[in-house]
Amino acid sequence: MALAPSRQWSLVARPQGEPQPSDVRLDEVDVPDPGPGEVRVRNTWLSVDPYMRGRMDDRPSYVPPFRLEEPMTGGAVGVVELVGDGVEGVAEGDCVLHDRGWRERAVLRADAVRVVDADLAPAQAYLGVLGTTGLTAWVGVLDVAQMREGDVVLVSGAAGAVGSVAGQVARLKGASAVVGTAGGEEKVRWLLDDAGFTRAGDHRSASPADLLRDLLPDGADVYFDNVGGPTLEAALPRMRDHGRVALCGAISGYNATSAPPGPRTLGLAIGKRLRLEGFIVTDHLDRTEEFTREMAGWIARGDVVYRETATEGVESAFDAFRGVLSGANTGKMLVRLDPDL
Amino acid sequence: MALAPSRQWSLVARPQGEPQPSDVRLDEVDVPDPGPGEVRVRNTWLSVDPYMRGRMDDRPSYVPPFRLEEPMTGGAVGVVELVGDGVEGVAEGDCVLHDRGWRERAVLRADAVRVVDADLAPAQAYLGVLGTTGLTAWVGVLDVAQMREGDVVLVSGAAGAVGSVAGQVARLKGASAVVGTAGGEEKVRWLLDDAGFTRAGDHRSASPADLLRDLLPDGADVYFDNVGGPTLEAALPRMRDHGRVALCGAISGYNATSAPPGPRTLGLAIGKRLRLEGFIVTDHLDRTEEFTREMAGWIARGDVVYRETATEGVESAFDAFRGVLSGANTGKMLVRLDPDL
Repeated sequence: MALAPSRQWSLVARPQGEPQPSDVRLDEVDVPDPGPGEVRVRNTWLSVDPYMRGRMDDRPSYVPPFRLEEPMTGGAVGVVELVGDGVEGVAEGDCVLHDRGWRERAVLRADAVRVVDADLAPAQAYLGVLGTTGLTAWVGVLDVAQMREGDVVLVSGAAGAVGSVAGQVARLKGASAVVGTAGGEEKVRWLLDDAGFTRAGDHRSASPADLLRDLLPDGADVYFDNVGGPTLEAALPRMRDHGRVALCGAISGYNATSAPPGPRTLGLAIGKRLRLEGFIVTDHLDRTEEFTREMAGWIARGDVVYRETATEGVESAFDAFRGVLSGANTGKMLVRLDPDL
Repeated sequence: MALAPSRQWSLVARPQGEPQPSDVRLDEVDVPDPGPGEVRVRNTWLSVDPYMRGRMDDRPSYVPPFRLEEPMTGGAVGVVELVGDGVEGVAEGDCVLHDRGWRERAVLRADAVRVVDADLAPAQAYLGVLGTTGLTAWVGVLDVAQMREGDVVLVSGAAGAVGSVAGQVARLKGASAVVGTAGGEEKVRWLLDDAGFTRAGDHRSASPADLLRDLLPDGADVYFDNVGGPTLEAALPRMRDHGRVALCGAISGYNATSAPPGPRTLGLAIGKRLRLEGFIVTDHLDRTEEFTREMAGWIARGDVVYRETATEGVESAFDAFRGVLSGANTGKMLVRLDPDL
């Protein structure tokens, strides 16, 4: 039996507030050959995502918490190095998507990987615009918020992996205006110059109420909310009657040590007949096929642009994760691993 | 031309917080005979409703604000005293429903009154269980919250005019449990002994979180919210996955002079995939016919019980209104006027 070296991140303490280096540990381990029905994958890209912050807490949620002293999991793509006995449909050299991120190498059941078409888009796109990130944006706009042609659509966290795709889906589906908020002038410029947003503003430049009044002089029909907190509070008064809010994330509070204030404006939902609806992408995997077909077409035609912010090497994964919580990324936050490791 | 005496309430100042006697004035006026196409109505019952508090403020809403120095309006039933030239379909002695409440007599266009069947139910029921109050409860449970058979349904303000009907609609439509909160032991007893609630609790007896934990050991699928505020905050953690919240009212904040805190638990809506939806009954008037047929049947069979709390004489209307805001009523709050005036 041959062993292959790997480094992998384990959670060793539950973070209080912002995750600290003392909450995690990078271990060097030896990964065995795959057994029957298994494959060994050398990861090339790891995904770090805001939702992982919730998994670091020990409380019931829609995904189980990370267990202490075990390697963390998350989205990853890699190349199949070795194939065990009896495996069909996966071959050495295939590019695969799976959930054993936070590490360099993984052995897992062959039916737990999905072979992806690296000719259609770069492999890491399957962690972002062509993966659950893109699907989140697409179902949030179309199925949850039920955007209609002509709607004015607001997206917060608009330069993030989900937000930037949500805004572009809205534009391509006929929104009359797509308005984004993001953290910093550079992100705002990218939204306006490259991602096709109608208007965009820096949430650090003004109070949420002032910013959204400027950006939405005539209100909004749809709000795709990635941030929660004061931006959600300021968005509700801007909603038009019968507006719809897709509650996708609340990153502004993920590191909070006590419950942040709720939106004092929620009472407006009655008179305005607003609908606010929380969703998680794994309830909508039946839409994957239609999403992939539509999104791949948009990408091929250049209708959807996407950006990545990548750090280098498995040792950078924890910093990348802390960065995605603080908004260091434009577009999808990734960790690139040396393919010749 | 004959004049008939009437007393009527006008708003003379916009209340700050709780409405004060100095905000209103009761005037004695003479009402003329009806002109062509008009009728004169002697009111017998006036409705006072929490939503009227919003109309006392001067801000845009789904119903326009009351104008200062003009008589206030609101639901009323009365008897047609005089019929003007050319009126068809309305006759002297008819019992009619209309919106010129807050007064003893009114002259209005005949097409602005609806003749009601006082044999089916007492006339004042058309201001409550058979009127927009009952319709609010019925559409809130069935259309907005989309209650399904077997759901556990929570109703706040459950002893109020809308809440008491909402709980009974839920029971009759197959809820597995109907749970109510109300203010005071007497209301709780009425919910349990007469209105058929499965469980009920006094919101003054414990913190909202403790109360709802006791009342909903296994959570709730539907929350019909009449009160907002701390009860809404405490209800969200009790909601089961894919739960639905019908936002009908937020009476806990109607007299607030600054925005009360929002629900700190709203972020749970993402992981639980909750839907919160505000509604107002006037969007759902197309459901009136089906509602009336079903509700009249329930009432005739004794399946729905309802209660009224009535004050006497037009001079008591303002106190009745203040009472409905502070929870002095069980069931529908009404003002009874002397029919032999």
